[in-house]
Amino acid sequence: MGSTRARIAIDAMGGDHAPAEIVAGALRAQEELGVEVLLVGDPHQIEATLKQHTSSHLPQIVPSEGTIEMHEEPLSGLKRKPKASINVAMDLVKQKQADAVVSAGHSGAAMASALLRLGRLRGIDRPAIGAVLPTMVASKSVLILDVGANVDCRPKFLEQFALMGSIYSQYVLGVDEPKVGLLNIGEEECKGNELAIRTHQKLQENSQISFIGNAEGRDVLTGRFDVIVCDGFVGNVLLKFAEAVGEAVLHILKEELPQGLHGQIGTALLKPNLKRIKQRVDHAEHGGCLLLGVAGICVISHGSSQAPSIFNAVRLAKEAIDNQVLERIQSQGRISQQSAVSGQEEE
Amino acid sequence: MGSTRARIAIDAMGGDHAPAEIVAGALRAQEELGVEVLLVGDPHQIEATLKQHTSSHLPQIVPSEGTIEMHEEPLSGLKRKPKASINVAMDLVKQKQADAVVSAGHSGAAMASALLRLGRLRGIDRPAIGAVLPTMVASKSVLILDVGANVDCRPKFLEQFALMGSIYSQYVLGVDEPKVGLLNIGEEECKGNELAIRTHQKLQENSQISFIGNAEGRDVLTGRFDVIVCDGFVGNVLLKFAEAVGEAVLHILKEELPQGLHGQIGTALLKPNLKRIKQRVDHAEHGGCLLLGVAGICVISHGSSQAPSIFNAVRLAKEAIDNQVLERIQSQGRISQQSAVSGQEEE
Repeated sequence: MGSTRARIAIDAMGGDHAPAEIVAGALRAQEELGVEVLLVGDPHQIEATLKQHTSSHLPQIVPSEGTIEMHEEPLSGLKRKPKASINVAMDLVKQKQADAVVSAGHSGAAMASALLRLGRLRGIDRPAIGAVLPTMVASKSVLILDVGANVDCRPKFLEQFALMGSIYSQYVLGVDEPKVGLLNIGEEECKGNELAIRTHQKLQENSQISFIGNAEGRDVLTGRFDVIVCDGFVGNVLLKFAEAVGEAVLHILKEELPQGLHGQIGTALLKPNLKRIKQRVDHAEHGGCLLLGVAGICVISHGSSQAPSIFNAVRLAKEAIDNQVLERIQSQGRISQQSAVSGQEEE
Repeated sequence: MGSTRARIAIDAMGGDHAPAEIVAGALRAQEELGVEVLLVGDPHQIEATLKQHTSSHLPQIVPSEGTIEMHEEPLSGLKRKPKASINVAMDLVKQKQADAVVSAGHSGAAMASALLRLGRLRGIDRPAIGAVLPTMVASKSVLILDVGANVDCRPKFLEQFALMGSIYSQYVLGVDEPKVGLLNIGEEECKGNELAIRTHQKLQENSQISFIGNAEGRDVLTGRFDVIVCDGFVGNVLLKFAEAVGEAVLHILKEELPQGLHGQIGTALLKPNLKRIKQRVDHAEHGGCLLLGVAGICVISHGSSQAPSIFNAVRLAKEAIDNQVLERIQSQGRISQQSAVSGQEEE
């Protein structure tokens, strides 16, 4: 990827399994992905963890003080702890010492820190969290945004989500002309709540995206849509439900399959097949969500992330860097903003 | 059961498989459940279908003219066709010739017809559609409402949904002191959009229900909650997603399990277990959704309903009749309304 390697600042103190699993995933990413990782956190703890690994190239440690706990209110926590690991990681991006941040810590704090330290991209009113889910078509995934950053939205926010999602889908997920859908309760354009009805019209009029209509709950996993936009309340409920359903399915399989003698033998024979199902259903495989619309690349990983998840999160960050997602959003967002101003639109 | 049998008016013309599957399900219900069914629809078509069955007691046919098609706008359709099957079925309840309506036709039309012909129960501002989903605890289900009747809600609507849901859960689903949750994006009471935050407070102050806090997407299927309230937009997205996930799971099982020789043998041995999984995952088993808050019992079945679904829908209607759900909602709704008035609350 050229002469300069992508530099990823990793919040080594964030998440249920920090720092051990975070450091392990970061080291693997550094070796296999050709990136440079910067481990942000308590130097003693990180060094102790590093001693358990043999690495040809030890990553740089950037000291921080404290971390935002899961129960803390993000804004006050970030202010009380200016040197918290997530703040220090964001500062590295701001000072151009890193190209991206990966954190499995408090997701609200990561978002707030990104907004406060990096700010928004021009042309974007509200950043959104995008989550990639597998679909029923084995080779296709769907990007859903927003899944939690903005609980009360206006139509123009969702329009910007559609734009950012399309760029991400095209340049990172490699989808040619991504098909955009609006999460809604019916196919017809008259369907939905006030937000959905007004957003539908805006999306239809926007020539920068390929809007193909409303996506109902049943359409999310069909593979018909590449990008689905919604407000962060609905998106968050849907994402957490989807993650839990994956677990529920594995639970039911475990409970129902082994019953009876035939069941026991059958289940034993199916071990490798069951493992493959787990991989398709398990969302930990996907690394994390991308925070789109802030002036820096940030990947927010699940709080329960272990090394493979962190590895995938770094891969995600690297792809966003390599494909210049920020620059593309900024330039298209500006076009969109200009046309809105000239069209006297204000939503 | 007393001396009078429950009388169920069935919209024989509504749904993808009308009238054949609707009539078949109705006949089975009449024989096995000890109810009296009234088949509403085109007499010629219904009679032709009845000829394919041998029944000891032929149900009464109530003639209607036309039906509301799936693409029609409910209100204008209902006005243009005053004798449409759904209107005639609702009139039977209004004229006390039937105790309940079951329809697999246009669900928006069924709801609008119920509102126009039967009206709301006193103390209830907005009727809600309640859906029962299976949970990870085999013997427990969860009632979610609203799943589509009201896309834009106010806190007091959700409070009324909680009240109606609790009554339904207690008297029809047999749950002692049903635990109520508010669908939200976090556990803390400060979390959520404006509607959720204000509703949380109202639910906490309401002594008529057992509110145990917010339910995140991941909590829906855990069995921790008996009733979960939300606005009809989020609820509809969630329900349709859940239904589709059930199908997706069966699809993935079919695709992944039989691979390899061991897989093929294993799958063959597991046939009965797979059938049981299908039953647990497949929502067609549940008959339909109850429309709560109108002055009559109405079960709205899935458009794709076949005979077993209609049978289950009639069973659902019968349970609501036997357990006096309407009377209980009306009396408790009135108490709630009085206390709101005395407390000068207006949301």
